[in-house]
Amino acid sequence: MSSSMGTILKVTTFGESHGQGVGVVVDGCPAGLPLQPADIQVQLDRRRPGQSTLTTPRDEADRVTILSGVENGKTLGSPIALLVANRDARPAEYAALKNVPRPSHADYTYQIKYGRRAFSGGGRSSARETIGRVAAGAIAEKFLFETHGIEIVAWVSAVGTVNAPGVDVLRIIRREVDQTPIRCPVKAATVKMISAVQAAGKAGDSLGGIISCVCRHVPPGLGEPVFDKLEAALAGAMLSIPATKGFEIGSGFSGSRMCGSQHNDLFVKKGGQLGTRTNYSGGVQGGISNGEPIVFQVAFKPPATIGQSQQTADFEGNETTLVAGGRHDPCVVPRAVPIVESMAALVIGDMLLRRQKPLNIP
Amino acid sequence: MSSSMGTILKVTTFGESHGQGVGVVVDGCPAGLPLQPADIQVQLDRRRPGQSTLTTPRDEADRVTILSGVENGKTLGSPIALLVANRDARPAEYAALKNVPRPSHADYTYQIKYGRRAFSGGGRSSARETIGRVAAGAIAEKFLFETHGIEIVAWVSAVGTVNAPGVDVLRIIRREVDQTPIRCPVKAATVKMISAVQAAGKAGDSLGGIISCVCRHVPPGLGEPVFDKLEAALAGAMLSIPATKGFEIGSGFSGSRMCGSQHNDLFVKKGGQLGTRTNYSGGVQGGISNGEPIVFQVAFKPPATIGQSQQTADFEGNETTLVAGGRHDPCVVPRAVPIVESMAALVIGDMLLRRQKPLNIP
Amino acid sequence: MSSSMGTILKVTTFGESHGQGVGVVVDGCPAGLPLQPADIQVQLDRRRPGQSTLTTPRDEADRVTILSGVENGKTLGSPIALLVANRDARPAEYAALKNVPRPSHADYTYQIKYGRRAFSGGGRSSARETIGRVAAGAIAEKFLFETHGIEIVAWVSAVGTVNAPGVDVLRIIRREVDQTPIRCPVKAATVKMISAVQAAGKAGDSLGGIISCVCRHVPPGLGEPVFDKLEAALAGAMLSIPATKGFEIGSGFSGSRMCGSQHNDLFVKKGGQLGTRTNYSGGVQGGISNGEPIVFQVAFKPPATIGQSQQTADFEGNETTLVAGGRHDPCVVPRAVPIVESMAALVIGDMLLRRQKPLNIP
Amino acid sequence: MSSSMGTILKVTTFGESHGQGVGVVVDGCPAGLPLQPADIQVQLDRRRPGQSTLTTPRDEADRVTILSGVENGKTLGSPIALLVANRDARPAEYAALKNVPRPSHADYTYQIKYGRRAFSGGGRSSARETIGRVAAGAIAEKFLFETHGIEIVAWVSAVGTVNAPGVDVLRIIRREVDQTPIRCPVKAATVKMISAVQAAGKAGDSLGGIISCVCRHVPPGLGEPVFDKLEAALAGAMLSIPATKGFEIGSGFSGSRMCGSQHNDLFVKKGGQLGTRTNYSGGVQGGISNGEPIVFQVAFKPPATIGQSQQTADFEGNETTLVAGGRHDPCVVPRAVPIVESMAALVIGDMLLRRQKPLNIP
Repeated sequence: MSSSMGTILKVTTFGESHGQGVGVVVDGCPAGLPLQPADIQVQLDRRRPGQSTLTTPRDEADRVTILSGVENGKTLGSPIALLVANRDARPAEYAALKNVPRPSHADYTYQIKYGRRAFSGGGRSSARETIGRVAAGAIAEKFLFETHGIEIVAWVSAVGTVNAPGVDVLRIIRREVDQTPIRCPVKAATVKMISAVQAAGKAGDSLGGIISCVCRHVPPGLGEPVFDKLEAALAGAMLSIPATKGFEIGSGFSGSRMCGSQHNDLFVKKGGQLGTRTNYSGGVQGGISNGEPIVFQVAFKPPATIGQSQQTADFEGNETTLVAGGRHDPCVVPRAVPIVESMAALVIGDMLLRRQKPLNIP
Repeated sequence: MSSSMGTILKVTTFGESHGQGVGVVVDGCPAGLPLQPADIQVQLDRRRPGQSTLTTPRDEADRVTILSGVENGKTLGSPIALLVANRDARPAEYAALKNVPRPSHADYTYQIKYGRRAFSGGGRSSARETIGRVAAGAIAEKFLFETHGIEIVAWVSAVGTVNAPGVDVLRIIRREVDQTPIRCPVKAATVKMISAVQAAGKAGDSLGGIISCVCRHVPPGLGEPVFDKLEAALAGAMLSIPATKGFEIGSGFSGSRMCGSQHNDLFVKKGGQLGTRTNYSGGVQGGISNGEPIVFQVAFKPPATIGQSQQTADFEGNETTLVAGGRHDPCVVPRAVPIVESMAALVIGDMLLRRQKPLNIP
Repeated sequence: MSSSMGTILKVTTFGESHGQGVGVVVDGCPAGLPLQPADIQVQLDRRRPGQSTLTTPRDEADRVTILSGVENGKTLGSPIALLVANRDARPAEYAALKNVPRPSHADYTYQIKYGRRAFSGGGRSSARETIGRVAAGAIAEKFLFETHGIEIVAWVSAVGTVNAPGVDVLRIIRREVDQTPIRCPVKAATVKMISAVQAAGKAGDSLGGIISCVCRHVPPGLGEPVFDKLEAALAGAMLSIPATKGFEIGSGFSGSRMCGSQHNDLFVKKGGQLGTRTNYSGGVQGGISNGEPIVFQVAFKPPATIGQSQQTADFEGNETTLVAGGRHDPCVVPRAVPIVESMAALVIGDMLLRRQKPLNIP
Repeated sequence: MSSSMGTILKVTTFGESHGQGVGVVVDGCPAGLPLQPADIQVQLDRRRPGQSTLTTPRDEADRVTILSGVENGKTLGSPIALLVANRDARPAEYAALKNVPRPSHADYTYQIKYGRRAFSGGGRSSARETIGRVAAGAIAEKFLFETHGIEIVAWVSAVGTVNAPGVDVLRIIRREVDQTPIRCPVKAATVKMISAVQAAGKAGDSLGGIISCVCRHVPPGLGEPVFDKLEAALAGAMLSIPATKGFEIGSGFSGSRMCGSQHNDLFVKKGGQLGTRTNYSGGVQGGISNGEPIVFQVAFKPPATIGQSQQTADFEGNETTLVAGGRHDPCVVPRAVPIVESMAALVIGDMLLRRQKPLNIP
């Protein structure tokens, strides 16, 4: 298993769904950053279950404890360890799953790879693993904002077949995103989205969706070609989030249908530096940020655990009917918004710390 | 700059477009693999410019030399260094670009990041950098095929607005892909695609496209959750290829519009092991291969360098009209097919070597 | 700060001397290893303060809690997080050190590097950081013993000017090492060593020493030339332990005074495989284990914190007399024995998991 | 095999003793560094064989070619690939070694690990592998000197039993080191050393030795505790050099025999900052440079390949008498001087680029 990411800003998550707790170690954060538990808690609260009727009823306060790395409200430069206890674990509910791998879930592949799997709740493949990411991401966000004014905002831009285009990436803020529990800032779409999620939940079904994200005020020059291009690092980070199936930056797949004379972002003077008239590039060129907003989208599949019975096979290959227990979200995208923001913050934070200035030697 | 990828199978590329040459060092390939220059050359020939009327007229034979790591036709276990000389470099053609960054190209971001850029041909952001990837990928492919019978086949599934659905991922082979220079195996689409590329070329314009890829016979159990999930590593690898804007695995973005009861891949006995009836997952569950074919798509933008004049700004911000010289492809996807295959081979090869067997201790 | 080591078996420690606690995340340990807290506690008990009159009176039970990665007494393959609470922290005792960096301690360099330092107890440079190493090492040791019968034994071979040569590296076991609190198995030397430590303690002074270590039954073939040679990885691991000043493997520095005809380890048949008559190589040749016992030594300086007053300078450069408070060991080598064993286990465990078998393809 | 080192300044060497050539890729060197082949050649010339009667008669000019990463005499920020061709390879001379592993050489362990070994000249375990290190180190040295005035000087401080103490680490320069082919700046010792080497050579024997090294003007604050402490990185780098058996920094093993009141380096004002009166620490405290000269020593064993016949065993375990052919140095330390300097430069260069400044946020 590989639970670490980052070159200078290194993040290591740990914890299973129904063990003692989940957490993260953030190593490489510069010393001197003001940091309080509340800076982290605010994003954990946006991720936690039970926050609205749209999410799993599993009730976890998800209170974070800072174990190390901070003294007198400032980071020491040493590893920051964060712990969130598991409280509302109900392993008994998963008894039915002992012999039958849930379709499109990680039960089968974990069993094959590790010769066992955590007995309940998905273990390490559970969404609870993302608590560590969000906690770490909150620290990275604070670092990015305090040192460079970088703002990262994600939102739900599609739920099932309901799309919500038209968000102004230059102005969207989290308060607007959080106005409804579906975390879509386009009012016209929210009612339809919420109805769709509720209908899926009642039918014992689930829905996928898309999250869009913008990172503003990212200085030009971030990203490490050729293999650690900024968009490559973002793509890898996003596809490491559970349930993701796709990533696109800037024009993305629709850009593949355009011709160059349309797609090229022509340069123009903006304030003291060069900017571009359009932003089909999504804020990156050649793997390096160009100073324009970084804009990308992430596709999430419908959750694999559904209430409906499924005609599938047990581990031995015998046909069986599975009726899954446990408590699950009919649609994960509202709670995944802070996860996407956090992964973006971790990638950009690492790139900022990896950047080297060119020399000026005659 | 970060020109290395991989944890056990480590690949380091080097070289600029118009320097002495380009190449790669492949470290971590197991000893004992039969390897001849021809094993590598075959994929370089599919990538090289000038191979058809659809590609840049820059004429490079791109002959590979094995500098180290192979003796008596077998790998030694030591780093395999490969070199391809640059021959048809014409730096003079790029003189016009000295003061004007090409829109949507890496000229501006390299200048900002490195305080300079290779004077001609895009330097390190040139497509010639991918020679090292293809050469390394050919070695990885040989390793995967000889040890596990793994087959990797990519093809062009869209050029601009011309789509080519319906390819049978279980049967498609490279010979079918290579029947036309556009590298699309769907005959009905190839004529339209070729016409579109030729029309774009004549108009001094360029076209994007999509490449699809299947990896067959990948054993279950590959991928390292949580941050190095197989799909995350593939996404990162693909988005590190020049001109890419998107990645999706299995159902991808269209999966986000489905509900769980449709999307779940129900298990069924296949031969001696579990398989799935459908493959919306694209061969991965929870970040780990499940034994089904790994299927993904990569979106490429239209090349930034076009013959048409563009109203843009120079480095100082002054408005100017750019007419780019140099020799370029109107559409890169046919030549990018072996690049996608190679990056897939490098990711899967590394995951295969990173895999640890579970212990069986009472 | 860089608190992680290892390529496949990755270890990340966290925690300051006087914060909430210290701990470690061990990622990459194969699934299926039987593991109980007692497997870890036994080594922590050998490391903990207050275990004898020779060590610091700081009283810490150092009880370990397994937060994740283990279920039903077996490892899951997921990250194993371990936590040890700090209990007997007395930050007040360090007030005198606020303005004066302790000579030969990390106070000054931490202040320069991080712009601050943990206020008390040395923070991250404290010996308490090694708790995470020992806890992780105990897991690695269990893995090495259960899968390959590998035994690692370290002992004190010198305290100050008292040497204890003549230990039989083929037979020495931990029970013999632990017969006296000085952890030297050579009876003739122990009385002198203990007296020397007690005398130094009474004089407000401190003593250095040397730890020797043997790793038996390490299979041939471990180590990754050229930069991750087994001896290079061991050297780096040992010199990362606080207070270490030197490392030598096999003949070490004395080998530099020999000629080749003496020093060469001639091959001889041993059981079914090749062994060597002598072992000046210390179990490695060309960076790779050769099947002979791996034997090395680590030099520790006398602890920097002493009771005697010292004529030094404060952070501003003003001359001052420092009388350090706090509770400290007059000689660290007895407690460092399990640390050396643990670092050896982590290095060998990682090399075992990194090893690739050569292919056998005609 | 693992042929890469470094986190930001990444170095990857390649090449066997008797293949086409040896070389290195240096990635992560900042853009804008003035660099000519002569900057590199000067150190290669100090390493090359045949430079004096004390070294192997193998005659290699070892001319370096810069393949990439430099344009108009300045680094581009992209990977710098360097190649040195092998010319005077004589594989035939090694025929006798086919069935008999040379004692204390890597023949046996390579055969075990890789299932084969390069047929002649030691392949990857040959001293020729260090050409890449020296070439890369020369670039790092230039970077360190141009940006921080850092000077690195190594010298031979012992050959066999002949010691040469008393070198002034504050003043020693390379010109003094190079005054004799033995590379020892202590005149009184050089004659004895040279005689000893010549006698060993005539006797078909070999001699070990010790190299000392000082790095001056290293700014305080370099090194990444806890696992990548500066001394840990140096120890790992030095023990990765072929034929090394030991490393010590500052007081080293002799420091283990001292008491703290002697060993502690008391602070004193030096110019505008704190320095220490003594330097038993060797320029590091807590794993971080303190601004004092970094001083360390490396022990080299006598070369394993000797002219005398040896009673050993072949690969099958049969007793045999080995008389090795090939051309070898009776003592490697004179030629290893630039290797030690280079490894030090690579470690310090990487640490300089990894360093993060603390934040100053109220």
